[in-house]
Amino acid sequence: MRAWFAKQLDELRGQLVVTAASVTSSIRWATQSLLHQDLDAAQQVSAAAAEMKATKAHVEELILQLLVRQQPVATDLRLALAGLHVVGDLERMSALADHIAKIVVLRHPVPVVPAEIRPAVQRMGEVAEELAWTVTRALETDDPDAAARMERDDDIVDTLHRDMFGVLFSEWTHGVQAAVDLTLICRYYERYADHAVNAGHQVVFMVTGEAPPS
Amino acid sequence: MRAWFAKQLDELRGQLVVTAASVTSSIRWATQSLLHQDLDAAQQVSAAAAEMKATKAHVEELILQLLVRQQPVATDLRLALAGLHVVGDLERMSALADHIAKIVVLRHPVPVVPAEIRPAVQRMGEVAEELAWTVTRALETDDPDAAARMERDDDIVDTLHRDMFGVLFSEWTHGVQAAVDLTLICRYYERYADHAVNAGHQVVFMVTGEAPPS
Repeated sequence: MRAWFAKQLDELRGQLVVTAASVTSSIRWATQSLLHQDLDAAQQVSAAAAEMKATKAHVEELILQLLVRQQPVATDLRLALAGLHVVGDLERMSALADHIAKIVVLRHPVPVVPAEIRPAVQRMGEVAEELAWTVTRALETDDPDAAARMERDDDIVDTLHRDMFGVLFSEWTHGVQAAVDLTLICRYYERYADHAVNAGHQVVFMVTGEAPPS
Repeated sequence: MRAWFAKQLDELRGQLVVTAASVTSSIRWATQSLLHQDLDAAQQVSAAAAEMKATKAHVEELILQLLVRQQPVATDLRLALAGLHVVGDLERMSALADHIAKIVVLRHPVPVVPAEIRPAVQRMGEVAEELAWTVTRALETDDPDAAARMERDDDIVDTLHRDMFGVLFSEWTHGVQAAVDLTLICRYYERYADHAVNAGHQVVFMVTGEAPPS
């Protein structure tokens, strides 16, 4: 029975790898659309987000069947429930990338990000993508450094987010609409990074059995 | 065994009622703090949010024990997993109310909401509170109208949220910082309402067995 459970858990991880990889692409395309007014990229993000609901339902059903078909012991249950948390976080990450893409479409062809802010936004996008990529890799293979790297990357996003408020509150010359757009976009990146870190902790737990920090 | 499960599920619902009632108070205090620069109210919101992590862990443990101590059938599992979704949403709602309170503390004694926006913000707070209250009541007693009422209230919050962008983008005279604060505050109310609706759907499912809309 334990062998069967381990095999099912592997299948679950396989599904989550594909989903995490898609969510990683989404934030890359969202940043691309944001920095280059790229409507094709924005469209790809929205298409991926539309598919996520079905993916999440599928993973939840997989976990449910996994639990129904055996007498669960506490450890197995915790692993399966970690999978639920991960797919919930991945779905939110996909939706947040889509929120960014939607602002690009709404303002097109006007650039959303003023020139002097582009490097900071690009950096935020890179670190968010790196976080999602760390989650994807950690699902595929035991990565003992994943947790530490995620903490570091999450701190970078928080710092970039804070710096942005500094710019908005002291040197801003682009009007209220651009400020509102940028406020929301930074919030979306920050939440994306947060969900990636949460998912990453659960993944480390699924792979190593090491409890996520409470 | 089914009777034991039903009893445990009742206990779980009891825990969720207390938690949902606390989250309802949080948004009321957050709105109070926002409209009256009330630091005591803000402090109550933050104290409640700090307690939520322990509450969530407790509910998750309760659900885990509930699943471990019986051979679960699919229906029971779905009910228990709905409880997990609900407590996750309630935790986020508490955190979002706290985000509002934290902005009040940051700007104190300066009012965060300009006078002409106060009625709209007050209305948003009332509807968000009403949504959380609907979730609380639906947990306590079978409420056949809960789902329809939540849809209506969620639409009201979305409309108020959209109207606010209209004000920000056309008639705004209060500078960038106030616009950024208000953008985030409206986003927090909107997310709070969204999580309430999600939780409400799961509660209706827990109570009636009627599947939440996908």
